[in-house]
Amino acid sequence: MSQFEFTHRRKNPLTGNWVLVSPHRNNRPWLGATEKSAPSNLPEHDETCPLCPGNQRANDTHNPEYDKTFVFTNDFGALTPHVAEQAAQLETNPLFEIEAATGECRVICFSPKHNKTLPELPANEIKDVVDTWKQHYVELSAQYACVHIFENKGAVMGCSQPHPHGQVWAHSHLSTEIQLEQASQHQYQQTHGSNLLADYVKREIADGERVVYQNDHWLVVVPFWAAWPFETLLVSKDDVRHFGQLTEAQSTALADAIKVLTTRYDNVFNCSFPYSMGWHCAPSDLDDDSHWRMHAHFYPPLLRSATVKKHMVGYEMLAESQRDLSPETAAKILKNASDVHYTEGNQ
Amino acid sequence: MSQFEFTHRRKNPLTGNWVLVSPHRNNRPWLGATEKSAPSNLPEHDETCPLCPGNQRANDTHNPEYDKTFVFTNDFGALTPHVAEQAAQLETNPLFEIEAATGECRVICFSPKHNKTLPELPANEIKDVVDTWKQHYVELSAQYACVHIFENKGAVMGCSQPHPHGQVWAHSHLSTEIQLEQASQHQYQQTHGSNLLADYVKREIADGERVVYQNDHWLVVVPFWAAWPFETLLVSKDDVRHFGQLTEAQSTALADAIKVLTTRYDNVFNCSFPYSMGWHCAPSDLDDDSHWRMHAHFYPPLLRSATVKKHMVGYEMLAESQRDLSPETAAKILKNASDVHYTEGNQ
Ligand SMILES: O=P(O)(O)O[C@H]1O[C@H](CO)[C@@H](O)[C@H](O)[C@H]1O
Ligand SMILES: O=P(O)(O)O[C@H]1O[C@H](CO)[C@@H](O)[C@H](O)[C@H]1O
Repeated sequence: MSQFEFTHRRKNPLTGNWVLVSPHRNNRPWLGATEKSAPSNLPEHDETCPLCPGNQRANDTHNPEYDKTFVFTNDFGALTPHVAEQAAQLETNPLFEIEAATGECRVICFSPKHNKTLPELPANEIKDVVDTWKQHYVELSAQYACVHIFENKGAVMGCSQPHPHGQVWAHSHLSTEIQLEQASQHQYQQTHGSNLLADYVKREIADGERVVYQNDHWLVVVPFWAAWPFETLLVSKDDVRHFGQLTEAQSTALADAIKVLTTRYDNVFNCSFPYSMGWHCAPSDLDDDSHWRMHAHFYPPLLRSATVKKHMVGYEMLAESQRDLSPETAAKILKNASDVHYTEGNQ
Repeated sequence: MSQFEFTHRRKNPLTGNWVLVSPHRNNRPWLGATEKSAPSNLPEHDETCPLCPGNQRANDTHNPEYDKTFVFTNDFGALTPHVAEQAAQLETNPLFEIEAATGECRVICFSPKHNKTLPELPANEIKDVVDTWKQHYVELSAQYACVHIFENKGAVMGCSQPHPHGQVWAHSHLSTEIQLEQASQHQYQQTHGSNLLADYVKREIADGERVVYQNDHWLVVVPFWAAWPFETLLVSKDDVRHFGQLTEAQSTALADAIKVLTTRYDNVFNCSFPYSMGWHCAPSDLDDDSHWRMHAHFYPPLLRSATVKKHMVGYEMLAESQRDLSPETAAKILKNASDVHYTEGNQ
């Protein structure tokens, strides 16, 4: 048994938020909401899917007959490059702070195949996704300080299309989370003379208990401060601050890490494991970004089974996140999960 | 049309978090997850419900035959008064901050009737709930600095029992949200010489656009910085910092405000409107709490209908909250909703 099986709190050094850990609590009975599992018999091409090759989208355009990845501007983007006229007249009062926001939202189809998710793609096709992320990061970061690359996977995570895809939202302002991580990493470097995540990576590798997977360039851990039951941090072992700096070797190793992590996730409950994941990179308008290290957060909601998730609700929304199994227990489960996808081998 | 129908960000002065507002975005089609509505034919007493009067709970105790409210210690509480032995040996490293946590978790049944929610109770029975909140706040705040009183309503908000109930979690440490609100309110008073929420209440009443309801002692607004589609702030108009200070008149007026607000919520989509709500009070260990004002946040997830909610997922978890209709539009809808519950009158 881990040394952490008592009620305690841990602090997330990237955001300053605490999480309440109550390892005994997973024993309570659950009569509440259950989620639908993802459908498992999807066709390889769906006539009605706006993301499949050749199909019609929301407006009157048609997708090309793409055979790797495919990127288009979100037809209903939350951000547009257009600056509103009203923005000039915004009042300034500390209780009514408001600012105009401009940016771009794109959709990235990971594969032409409607029925494949990331873990079901071969590593070289995941590498195509990594290359596509890099290409659009480089293009958008030339114009916008803050480029958010993320994926919502599964209906329970608000994903409205099963076709494998992610998104990019880019904007000039720094989002709240990037502001927090920027301040924390900068502060840490000022105080300790070293890089926050570099130090963290070293400590986790030395300790080993929360390590889920590593290769030459990437580490996957259940972070010490994980809020979601099977939350992981995928972080570069090298001094890489954003996608623009990735070498071929780092990109290939990243595809391998994603393949293993997402396969293990699916194997925890033998289901297509829902999550939201996304990348945090150094803002592109910094003079010095040496306190940054590129990383992705995976936030999967499932807690007990393919259909019972953790609800981050009352206490969590009004006080702080609370978790029902320790990060160390979650890491053990993910470490022991098979690297062969449950739909393939006989486990 | 409101002056705010363009893409912008607003800052929450209580937490420092920003929210991205994209009012045009609610027009996009929705093919994603839908939620089940709450069952509408529940019995007044359910043999299998662990919260109904006289029934057996998880351990071998039986509930009394209560006829107003009823409070018991959560059989699976996330916090217990017990201090773990291991807590003494916790290491201190800025990347691995950890502290032991102790406290108490209680469940508050709002009514003996299994099938009634807050808006369906007469105002005098809601007043019983307010008095119960006050009683347990006073009792627990004598021992713990931070007392969180909240309600998760509806299965979509992780509520595992339809029987009307809320919770109290009390602990010695200040939770992340209370720490943030404490710092912001204190800072504001230092800078401006006045109380943050007192100033805010004045401005909102003068402006009127976001006001949903008010009586002699309470104001309900869709706050300028609302993140959830129909989020509201229920705030005292008087210099009241915590439950212990509530007068009879203020408690009665609070019951009236809750009756109206929750009735209007249910009438927006003619359904039992799910939400998480909770109270923020001054920590009880402050020498001077004059910068505080007692208030409740209501966070309802529904966006478009009784079954389509807003998903706070990828971008929201990794960047900042994003909303698809302006707070002013939401306020208008809540202002115009009927005060007669949809299950009663002919609307
Ligand atoms: O205590 P309950 O009602 O069983 O549990 C519910 O509320 C808690 C406090 O917000 C959450 O931690 C749980 O995820 C939720 O299911
Ligand atoms: O853009 P989509 O996939 O339609 O929408 C999904 O992701 C967005 C970004 O996280 C969220 O704002 C939406 O609530 C969610 O349903």
